[in-house]
Amino acid sequence: MNHCEDNNIDPKMIPRTEEEIESIIKRLKRIEGQVRGVQKMVEDNRYCVDVLIQISAINAALNKVGFNLLERHTKHCVSKALREGNGEESIQELMHVIKQFSK
Amino acid sequence: MNHCEDNNIDPKMIPRTEEEIESIIKRLKRIEGQVRGVQKMVEDNRYCVDVLIQISAINAALNKVGFNLLERHTKHCVSKALREGNGEESIQELMHVIKQFSK
Amino acid sequence: MNHCEDNNIDPKMIPRTEEEIESIIKRLKRIEGQVRGVQKMVEDNRYCVDVLIQISAINAALNKVGFNLLERHTKHCVSKALREGNGEESIQELMHVIKQFSK
Amino acid sequence: MNHCEDNNIDPKMIPRTEEEIESIIKRLKRIEGQVRGVQKMVEDNRYCVDVLIQISAINAALNKVGFNLLERHTKHCVSKALREGNGEESIQELMHVIKQFSK
Repeated sequence: MNHCEDNNIDPKMIPRTEEEIESIIKRLKRIEGQVRGVQKMVEDNRYCVDVLIQISAINAALNKVGFNLLERHTKHCVSKALREGNGEESIQELMHVIKQFSK
Repeated sequence: MNHCEDNNIDPKMIPRTEEEIESIIKRLKRIEGQVRGVQKMVEDNRYCVDVLIQISAINAALNKVGFNLLERHTKHCVSKALREGNGEESIQELMHVIKQFSK
Repeated sequence: MNHCEDNNIDPKMIPRTEEEIESIIKRLKRIEGQVRGVQKMVEDNRYCVDVLIQISAINAALNKVGFNLLERHTKHCVSKALREGNGEESIQELMHVIKQFSK
Repeated sequence: MNHCEDNNIDPKMIPRTEEEIESIIKRLKRIEGQVRGVQKMVEDNRYCVDVLIQISAINAALNKVGFNLLERHTKHCVSKALREGNGEESIQELMHVIKQFSK
């Protein structure tokens, strides 16, 4: 499927390439596996501290995916909005999402 | 299975009850579903900001599970260690895990 | 003093107005006072938890100043860089500073 | 002044030694100086990114003071509460303060 032909895409969005999608999905599948791993640790009554270290590793991995998306978003979508005169709204959105992330 | 009969459990660990395990697994299964949801959003070329908000929601959910585990750990395992004279090591561990989490 | 006449200003920088400077200084002076307040609490042997709550309030206040600066920076300096074709460098810088902040 | 003679101290509190107080005050005075340094940077119209890096350094320094206080608090005051049968309340308090910090 060619994502560029998809008419349902948000006009603010510069579509991800197949390579970009593949790379993000790979990381998310690994994170999904880590979450299942924690379930197994909890069921096996593994020591709380080991479970917690694993949860904080998942958080770190998720944050890394988030930062990559944020970087790409700023580089592509925010730049586009600034060029097209919709910068104000785009920067408000960016600040909102950064605020959410730093919580 | 009765977790209290499990001989492989870390001696520092007060085993989780079936209810505790069930409640944590339920939350982790929901988080696993959220991670799969984000994969779908990425494949569907959904707007970066919406994906990012969803990722920060997963982080928040994971942190909540982490806090509950941490609270239980302090209440049960750290208290036990303090009673048995192993408090020093237990508190070092606790501080280490809090540091990891706040990263 | 008119900051626009200042020749030592970084060319990437859109100078702050007198009003902007005044508003930031006001907040920073309050934060400075809070830091002195914590010193007094420590000297008076006030309860650790109360001191810690106060420290986390200072962190929150600092983050608020940081967010305002970040917002202004994105709105003014990053936009300018994007208009002048230096967007790549400016966005790298922005991501770096966001990463620092979320640590 | 001997802090152990101070009758206004919270009974939950194990008083800080003179050395502990001195070491914390030293760090807080340095942080106070950093906050003043940021005021100067803002007045001098220094580049936003440089100001932001400096603010995140102050946050890191404050967090370090906070962690040290938290560690000491757990080691001394929480342990004391657990020994004296007031562990429940003390752990609730500890979790509350950790939650505040991780915001």
